Amino acid sequence: MNASYMLKPGATIGVLGGGQLARMIALAAAPLGLKAHIYAPEAGSPAFDVASTHTQAAYDDLAALERFARSVDVVTYEFENVPVYTADFLAGHVPVHPGAKALGITQDRLEEKTFVSRLGIETAPFAAVNSVAELEQALQEIARPAVLKTRRFGYDGKGQVIIREGDDLAAAFTAIGHQPAILEGFVPFECEVSVVAARTGDGRFAAYEVTQNEHRHHILYRSTVPAEVTPAVEAVSREIARRIGEALGYVGVFAVEMFLVVVDGTQGLIVNEIAPRVHNSGHWTLDGAVTSQFEQHVRAIAGWPLGAVERLGRVEMTNLIGDEADEWLAVLDEPGAHLHLYGKEEARPGRKMGHVTRIFEE
Amino acid sequence: MNASYMLKPGATIGVLGGGQLARMIALAAAPLGLKAHIYAPEAGSPAFDVASTHTQAAYDDLAALERFARSVDVVTYEFENVPVYTADFLAGHVPVHPGAKALGITQDRLEEKTFVSRLGIETAPFAAVNSVAELEQALQEIARPAVLKTRRFGYDGKGQVIIREGDDLAAAFTAIGHQPAILEGFVPFECEVSVVAARTGDGRFAAYEVTQNEHRHHILYRSTVPAEVTPAVEAVSREIARRIGEALGYVGVFAVEMFLVVVDGTQGLIVNEIAPRVHNSGHWTLDGAVTSQFEQHVRAIAGWPLGAVERLGRVEMTNLIGDEADEWLAVLDEPGAHLHLYGKEEARPGRKMGHVTRIFEE
Repeated sequence: MNASYMLKPGATIGVLGGGQLARMIALAAAPLGLKAHIYAPEAGSPAFDVASTHTQAAYDDLAALERFARSVDVVTYEFENVPVYTADFLAGHVPVHPGAKALGITQDRLEEKTFVSRLGIETAPFAAVNSVAELEQALQEIARPAVLKTRRFGYDGKGQVIIREGDDLAAAFTAIGHQPAILEGFVPFECEVSVVAARTGDGRFAAYEVTQNEHRHHILYRSTVPAEVTPAVEAVSREIARRIGEALGYVGVFAVEMFLVVVDGTQGLIVNEIAPRVHNSGHWTLDGAVTSQFEQHVRAIAGWPLGAVERLGRVEMTNLIGDEADEWLAVLDEPGAHLHLYGKEEARPGRKMGHVTRIFEE
Repeated sequence: MNASYMLKPGATIGVLGGGQLARMIALAAAPLGLKAHIYAPEAGSPAFDVASTHTQAAYDDLAALERFARSVDVVTYEFENVPVYTADFLAGHVPVHPGAKALGITQDRLEEKTFVSRLGIETAPFAAVNSVAELEQALQEIARPAVLKTRRFGYDGKGQVIIREGDDLAAAFTAIGHQPAILEGFVPFECEVSVVAARTGDGRFAAYEVTQNEHRHHILYRSTVPAEVTPAVEAVSREIARRIGEALGYVGVFAVEMFLVVVDGTQGLIVNEIAPRVHNSGHWTLDGAVTSQFEQHVRAIAGWPLGAVERLGRVEMTNLIGDEADEWLAVLDEPGAHLHLYGKEEARPGRKMGHVTRIFEE
């Protein structure tokens, strides 16, 4: 795709994945005059309900992928675990954004940390671990408590184990399934923050204000904006996102999850993870910013001007996890609260069923 | 339907009509966890693209209507010219909102004016006209210029003719097709305003602020809020909407179009028309109010609490008519402008292709 590439209204966006992120991308595409074609393996995927077309097929079904590619004008995805060969195959037919580079790096925690670290951006101390012996060695340099994580396919706290003084290392390596892993030093952080940003093919960039995130049971529980950070940290957070986006040649919306640390009374940021997609910690932008992250993503992959990222007040976004979605009526009854349900039929524990945004005057 | 009727997330809203209003109703239903089933005769209807299901069939296809009725939990419509017998037939299977009473009255300009007038609310002077002789007689009471309109199926200035001094009455009656008609006196108004309001089955009511409307070639061109009215007129406008909604036993969102007149230096309101549906002059609420008219309509017909109607700034909504939609890129490039395209393929002259909202700080 060259820099002058630009979709026109009437074009179709293909989305790999059919969950709530794909659903909200499709809902944002429609007012811009774009159609959505959702590709997902699961029957009854939430995004199917709001898209003009859907394909229910596996990510390795090349025939279905080819038909999909031929029916759309650009492909994007809602989750970073799309197989790279799927993205590569599609890219042979149609522009795919974000590209294989961003996908490849962010699918592997070791590659990701290495990439960020080489940009001169601070990360937690880390080391590659492929055996119990390597784990033992890594623990010579990285103080306990430390976190052992699989390099690939981890999310919401799965595929990781904390190693404390006296813990059995073989058992820890077994706990994560004897997979190629990364050991990360524990960062004594004040809180978790994230920056959601967008970049276009010709290098335009826009970042939302840094967001403060509160997790429960390893799942995002609440995001608030503004975060309790100094103006300097606010500026640094955007600069970090800008440099990461630039180095990835990124097209679309992405999130950088960071730890806010305080050293000698001064706030600093340590990058934890890059998500090459719209992000739960950016859901507040749906009602709380001039342009939502979903519209912004669509604008970016369409080659269009980015939208304004100004905030509309003090914003709070709370996830509705599992049976918390039963609170829907109370949310509807609360003046100014915005309900967002994802259309999922079964409210399993830990499942993200929806979220609520609340905008307050500052 | 009794007052305690309430949909639950996962339910399906059936919408008669597949244009932009149905499309925006479907887009508003999704975040509330509701599915949409669109019923429309036209292939490629804009609302089909964002609904989980659609039926392409005629409004008098009873077999298709019955299947439709059995697949949804409530039926609503996007335009007032749905045949009353269609609404009646559906109501035998499933709740239909707004109901047949609102539909019947608003489909007939004479019935509508009579209804409003009997509520003690001011309208333009009017008289029934079924022949050239009756037209002549009516012109004895109603001064020229006056407007001769068909009683039924008129919109955007179609089916009406202005009668001035010296005009040929037989020609005028021919111009509107010799149909049952109404003669309306000309009202020397300052501007046109409208109130968009919502009412629930148990009588809860909420009205947005009165909106000032500018027409071009009989089609809405621009709406602005706040309107240039006194606080007294603002209050009266809502009270008019409340009484009309009450008298119709209305459920859902409706609009009351009014003329703002000035008599002896004092502003007053004259009701022109009732639209039993979401309304073009309420499109500003999509980005300019806490709750959009589309979400509000869904809440009302679902039996849910109504949302907050507060305005988020000074708002301006401009329609994109015909090839004005070619301006989409300039709109995207304007900070803070919100583009809403309707997904229509062909930009015929006079066709509503989209709209733009702009929110300004006050």
